[in-house]
Amino acid sequence: MASKAPKESNVDVLIIGAGPAGLMAAAWLSHLSVPTRIIDKRNTKIFCGQADGLQCRSLEILDSLGFADRAWKEANHMIEICMWNPGSDGVIRRSDRIPDTIVGLSRFQQIVLHQGRMERFFLDNIKKYSGGAVEVERGVLPVGLEILEGKGEGGKGGEFPVRVRLRGLSEEEATPVQVKTGSRVAASDGVFRSELLGGEEEEEVMRRSKARAGAEEVVNAKYVIGCDGARSWTRRALGFELDGEATDIVWGVMDIIPVTDFPDIRMRCAIHSASSGSLMVIPRENRLVRLYIQLKEVTPDASGRADRSKITPDFIFSTAQKILAPYKIDYEYCDWWTAYQIGQRVGTSFDAQQRVFLAGDAVHTHSPKAGQGMNVSMQDAYNLGWKVGLVAKGVCKPEILSSYQSERRRVAQDLIEFDQKFSRLFSGRPAKDVMDAEGVSMEEFKEAFLKGNMFASGLSVNYGPSCLVVKPGDAAEQGDGSEKTRKLVATHAITQEEFNRKQALATGLPVGMRFNSFKVLNQACARPWHFQERLKADGRFRVVLFAGSILSPAQKERVDKFCAKLDAPTSFLHRATPPGKPIDSIVEVLTIHSAKRTETELLRDFPDILHPFDEHVGWDYNKVFVDDESYHEGYGDAYKNYGVDRERGCVVAVRPDQYVGWIGELEDFEELEGYFGGCLVLRDV
Amino acid sequence: MASKAPKESNVDVLIIGAGPAGLMAAAWLSHLSVPTRIIDKRNTKIFCGQADGLQCRSLEILDSLGFADRAWKEANHMIEICMWNPGSDGVIRRSDRIPDTIVGLSRFQQIVLHQGRMERFFLDNIKKYSGGAVEVERGVLPVGLEILEGKGEGGKGGEFPVRVRLRGLSEEEATPVQVKTGSRVAASDGVFRSELLGGEEEEEVMRRSKARAGAEEVVNAKYVIGCDGARSWTRRALGFELDGEATDIVWGVMDIIPVTDFPDIRMRCAIHSASSGSLMVIPRENRLVRLYIQLKEVTPDASGRADRSKITPDFIFSTAQKILAPYKIDYEYCDWWTAYQIGQRVGTSFDAQQRVFLAGDAVHTHSPKAGQGMNVSMQDAYNLGWKVGLVAKGVCKPEILSSYQSERRRVAQDLIEFDQKFSRLFSGRPAKDVMDAEGVSMEEFKEAFLKGNMFASGLSVNYGPSCLVVKPGDAAEQGDGSEKTRKLVATHAITQEEFNRKQALATGLPVGMRFNSFKVLNQACARPWHFQERLKADGRFRVVLFAGSILSPAQKERVDKFCAKLDAPTSFLHRATPPGKPIDSIVEVLTIHSAKRTETELLRDFPDILHPFDEHVGWDYNKVFVDDESYHEGYGDAYKNYGVDRERGCVVAVRPDQYVGWIGELEDFEELEGYFGGCLVLRDV
Repeated sequence: MASKAPKESNVDVLIIGAGPAGLMAAAWLSHLSVPTRIIDKRNTKIFCGQADGLQCRSLEILDSLGFADRAWKEANHMIEICMWNPGSDGVIRRSDRIPDTIVGLSRFQQIVLHQGRMERFFLDNIKKYSGGAVEVERGVLPVGLEILEGKGEGGKGGEFPVRVRLRGLSEEEATPVQVKTGSRVAASDGVFRSELLGGEEEEEVMRRSKARAGAEEVVNAKYVIGCDGARSWTRRALGFELDGEATDIVWGVMDIIPVTDFPDIRMRCAIHSASSGSLMVIPRENRLVRLYIQLKEVTPDASGRADRSKITPDFIFSTAQKILAPYKIDYEYCDWWTAYQIGQRVGTSFDAQQRVFLAGDAVHTHSPKAGQGMNVSMQDAYNLGWKVGLVAKGVCKPEILSSYQSERRRVAQDLIEFDQKFSRLFSGRPAKDVMDAEGVSMEEFKEAFLKGNMFASGLSVNYGPSCLVVKPGDAAEQGDGSEKTRKLVATHAITQEEFNRKQALATGLPVGMRFNSFKVLNQACARPWHFQERLKADGRFRVVLFAGSILSPAQKERVDKFCAKLDAPTSFLHRATPPGKPIDSIVEVLTIHSAKRTETELLRDFPDILHPFDEHVGWDYNKVFVDDESYHEGYGDAYKNYGVDRERGCVVAVRPDQYVGWIGELEDFEELEGYFGGCLVLRDV
Repeated sequence: MASKAPKESNVDVLIIGAGPAGLMAAAWLSHLSVPTRIIDKRNTKIFCGQADGLQCRSLEILDSLGFADRAWKEANHMIEICMWNPGSDGVIRRSDRIPDTIVGLSRFQQIVLHQGRMERFFLDNIKKYSGGAVEVERGVLPVGLEILEGKGEGGKGGEFPVRVRLRGLSEEEATPVQVKTGSRVAASDGVFRSELLGGEEEEEVMRRSKARAGAEEVVNAKYVIGCDGARSWTRRALGFELDGEATDIVWGVMDIIPVTDFPDIRMRCAIHSASSGSLMVIPRENRLVRLYIQLKEVTPDASGRADRSKITPDFIFSTAQKILAPYKIDYEYCDWWTAYQIGQRVGTSFDAQQRVFLAGDAVHTHSPKAGQGMNVSMQDAYNLGWKVGLVAKGVCKPEILSSYQSERRRVAQDLIEFDQKFSRLFSGRPAKDVMDAEGVSMEEFKEAFLKGNMFASGLSVNYGPSCLVVKPGDAAEQGDGSEKTRKLVATHAITQEEFNRKQALATGLPVGMRFNSFKVLNQACARPWHFQERLKADGRFRVVLFAGSILSPAQKERVDKFCAKLDAPTSFLHRATPPGKPIDSIVEVLTIHSAKRTETELLRDFPDILHPFDEHVGWDYNKVFVDDESYHEGYGDAYKNYGVDRERGCVVAVRPDQYVGWIGELEDFEELEGYFGGCLVLRDV
């Protein structure tokens, strides 16, 4: 026991770990202006290498935060996958080409960029939105965690029931051991050090980190988010386990600048050699190429662990050379290398008392080849961040928090399943002919790859029923299958038949999936926008009113009626909005109509509530859009693509993370109100 | 005379003035790593308001420097122009809509953004590319300028013949008087102060600025670029004049957040009222709208100067209200306002001894309404920067410097002419009917607007013959008409007939105009690029080889022959490249072929010189492109759009500023060599 009590303070949210998941959570909370701290035991010296694939959905998410463009600009874009297999002569040849991203799936395609750059973008974004209030505290380790909720009111528990003890680390403790690269010219140590912080900034962080060394403090938080990786301290502190096991397949990874005559070195390639194993080529930025190399000759011992002493860069690379023969490959520069055993594990529980949450590698591990790691981790935190933030702010009911596990544990399980199948097919020897039952059929592999592409885009995620997603069934059936979730997740009552009727109103917007994006024009200025660009990560729910053919009197009447209810002082919209705040503070109403733009007038044809007036700055010109042709960027054909009737339209409720929560007719106002009553804290009036 | 000699130093280029023109020059020189200093008499407290339209060509240019995306993201996009005129009842109504940017002209459309943000982007870019070596020195005034060339060798003249005396200003001297805004809530003073520099950075600049106050120094420069605005000190020091005169039309300008029921307040509008004058609406970022308001009731006195004391924001705004009636308009927030008399003037000379150059407002002034000011100024410097830089580095012959005046004075003259016509039509009273000869026909106005749109895009610029542009005629005929230019500009001899034959090889690439952009795919990785994205502002000339149908043996033979000449040790390519430097250091060869991508192999089908090998990092995968369909971004149809024969192709020489310099057949190698011999310094071999 220390003789002097450590410094003690309160914060709404404490995030443990500043990798992509932790930074995503911090970004959300910064956008929501929720008091937040984020700590990381590492100082600024981070590895090269690491995860680097960014799938479509991740880019959509980064765009909602405001920096997808930075990643898009710097990254290598992966366009085509080439499959190489042995011919009848046993020599590899290109057997197929498929697009890397399914055409038409998203406005983004899969790209590859070093994780260090991603973290830099996050840090810039967090700084901008928090006004500098949220900053990663480096060299800080959690050493104790206790949830006091239910243990008493006021002093213990109360508003900040999670008590975390932190300790400042010395510089040596906070510096991870660098992987020594096996490059032929020595790769420098800490190449990406400068990515995270500018010179002066870094010195300041190090200075503060040193000042903290050895000191303990206590933080009382409303919520804690553990994003501290596969060996998560938070998970162990909660006593939670990961379920699953390692396989006996060992892979090597190398980031090199190749000197080669292999024709497809700048394509993503899946190469099965006749008998030397498999290889995956991932072209990267700055001439780099990542090779995933199956190490057939390394097999784990009885304990299940491979002997890593044999695994050297020369050994890994000579395997790659055998697989690629008769093509030649060599390198002078190696940026990073490692080796791993494929293991697939998922956490039994994603939260403790809905006060401490786990996200990212802390609750699921899998092989890196599918390029999913950074993506699923960020998406965990993207699902969680706004929920925690809006509950902490008193905007949402705490009941929404249980949907984190029901939604994300299902995704983690799907990921593991995908990874198992994909890894088996990828690691297997190619079948010699149709009679070769032990070999992997290259047709089956291609099929799996195509299906996997859909999964790997991140766009197949379909959340089950909860208070946030109005669907038939209960959370356990469509969710993660755990009894815990079944008990906790509140759902809306809707029959399958009724649901089918609602879903038919917008067949291109499946309830539970992300709001797809097509181009529409701003009614007031004719500027084309991908509609998703209007669904920014600002913590607001949205009502998207497909107003239909607004110039037809019958439809205009329906719209007017809907808007009159929306604008009534007792509506959920007014009851959700804090007194004195703009009417779009909590729920924003966006309109897409289907009449001709040039025949329609914003102020004349649309009720005021669709473009609210402010006495200081006038009408809001950024809320009403039209499904019409643009001068320079083609025609989004949004009604058709969303599967919405051009005449009658419909109403869609959208969550702050862009997922569709509810669909109904313009007459279904009470149901819409019921949806928001289920998740928002509404004032009594 | 000071008793102590002032500090004296040498620099390749000294830029006077850090507005858009000066910053553009500094950006070029930073990209070229030419030792450069840039001074500005203002400290960091700059105005709000100022020029803000960015035309297509400017965005293409910013993209070549690497930051068009930042402007594109923050700016307001102008999509449509609405024309409002009095009907037969005298009440204004919308008579026409036209697209703001001609469809298909460029991959960018015209946008509007505050000049302060532009300057911020420039400063970031200059810092990045110069590695911090080039920084604006603020609070520094030039007080003496002398060109010593021809006055002696060595000590005087020599390599650094322009002697400039500088003096550090005190803080008061360096702070411009702020325009007091007439807002109803007081607009803050120096709103955009923080745009230019971050907090600490700003303090540092001010500290250094203070340390310099009163101190004199002497800078000996190879070249000086005067970008110091309409009252240019540099121009006056050279004794040069501006030709032209002021009109008697006075306009007011206000940047406000309007509260209005005028339906097109978020469109660019040209409004002619029946008898209250004209108004232009320019919607801007952050809810701002700029109004240009004709002040009919203010007329200049006999001396030609209007009495500015009458001109208050209330007076200007009440005029706007009259013009817009019966619509109502009001505001609470005014960001900035001013008034000006239209005046059109152009400099008699753009340079002195090709050692001191003038750019931007220093050599041409005109009305701001056409949105051309910032654009033409930046484009002056974009034309000049690489010429000065490459001559200073010894890459180009000094002869190219005379093309600056021959190319840009013509543009300035065209601008003045356009502005005169446009201003007359815009300021005139609308004609009541066809018999009303004194009124302005609204049909004529629309016609002028449509034509003006082409001019205003910046894409109609067509440079005359010089050593940089192989065209028939002499510089004076197609250039600026001055005798001085006729004497100085070296041209290539080509007959009209011969020229027509060459131009017919690529009808979509007029010699003297900017290289248009269509999408092509990288042969090695299938990634689509707008071809212009590959023409970065790095100071390199380019040979674009339209290789045609590379898989046809006859065409392959033509390509092989061309490449053999290119790769001969005595070719201009080898002779231009400094020993030991990569072969693409001075002239980069880019290829676009027309065969199917998937049937073509980079290493198999293309001679090495088209994708040079480096023993450390392998083949170059970023030089060969294909005119083929992309998976996700459509088909650029580049051969068709460039007007090049798919079978036979052609060869195009492109200047570092993306202008087409020469076109020929694959067999015209000697002419191509002649082109480069005319502008590059070639080593003897």
